[in-house]
Amino acid sequence: MKIYGDLDSGNCLKVKWVCDRLLRRYTWIDIDTLKGETRTPEFLRLNSAGQVPVVEFDDGRTLAQSNAIIRYLARGTDLIPAEAFLAAKVDEWLFWEQYSHEPYVAACRFQMVYLGQSRSELDTEKVKRGYYALARMEQHLHDARFLVGDALSLADVALLAYTRVAPEGGFHLDGYGAVRRWIADCEAALHLPAVAPAAVHATS
Amino acid sequence: MKIYGDLDSGNCLKVKWVCDRLLRRYTWIDIDTLKGETRTPEFLRLNSAGQVPVVEFDDGRTLAQSNAIIRYLARGTDLIPAEAFLAAKVDEWLFWEQYSHEPYVAACRFQMVYLGQSRSELDTEKVKRGYYALARMEQHLHDARFLVGDALSLADVALLAYTRVAPEGGFHLDGYGAVRRWIADCEAALHLPAVAPAAVHATS
Repeated sequence: MKIYGDLDSGNCLKVKWVCDRLLRRYTWIDIDTLKGETRTPEFLRLNSAGQVPVVEFDDGRTLAQSNAIIRYLARGTDLIPAEAFLAAKVDEWLFWEQYSHEPYVAACRFQMVYLGQSRSELDTEKVKRGYYALARMEQHLHDARFLVGDALSLADVALLAYTRVAPEGGFHLDGYGAVRRWIADCEAALHLPAVAPAAVHATS
Repeated sequence: MKIYGDLDSGNCLKVKWVCDRLLRRYTWIDIDTLKGETRTPEFLRLNSAGQVPVVEFDDGRTLAQSNAIIRYLARGTDLIPAEAFLAAKVDEWLFWEQYSHEPYVAACRFQMVYLGQSRSELDTEKVKRGYYALARMEQHLHDARFLVGDALSLADVALLAYTRVAPEGGFHLDGYGAVRRWIADCEAALHLPAVAPAAVHATS
């Protein structure tokens, strides 16, 4: 299996983390989105939406959309609850992540990390909605160790991707103790190195 | 089962269409988002994200996010392909719909239909991205009757919701023959009344 992705992209890292945890072998192919590498005819044949990540299986079939990929790769494993309703709650978080979290938290980080913009250049509405998403997570995680059930699931993997690097997009996590505890728990469960302490405080 | 929703919202209609097709009984509870009915303490107990649709099952459990709901309700039916990879391709379209189609096509329609704005008030970047999404569908549907496999699936249900009313958001479908043919096929498969011909041409 080949994974076409960018190691600075949370969406791409979700796929890597799931493969690493499930001991799936893969070849990682670096794609530089800023250099237009997702807009070439060759890439658009892999994913006509022109986005990373994409996986290409040994039989040539391809699959895009980070959360669809991890859902497929993790089917039948402990990353998806066996009970149908709990699996649906995982899906609820996956769709919420792409609709109400990523477009704000990841988008601000993209502007600062990829485009080199400063915090003051961010759209205040995007920042507000990013904090709204973080506050919803804080509220939920105040009473729950993980997002669904009592063990790590794909919901945690998907939300971890950009939440742990939210400070790189100017978001302060100081007041989000439950989120920070959850980040550490997820990193431990996935055997990821902790994000450097400095990154917990928003960069400017 | 109760469905809390708004009959003008494509996201809510997805749930209705799937229930109607699967002959699932439900009570529909109208929610007026513009009047703040998704921000009341009672509603936030159903869905702390403050969004419709939400379904509440007879045992009191609740599920949000339109595509997570339809995926749960349709499990084990012909709306989700039995082959795991094809089911994953359905997921790919579901996530793409929420990330690359709805935020543009539905958002423009929201401004015009709900807020009474005119076409000239729309954000040109949103309009451009909406057409980009429609063009991707046109390209795919040029060679395929439905989005995944050769039968109607949740991918079609999800994309139909806002594509059929795209003209209400100022999008011209005149140059999108394959999309218009697909809309008619989906409407027939779901026994929906066709959208009035006038609606095919963008309103201003």
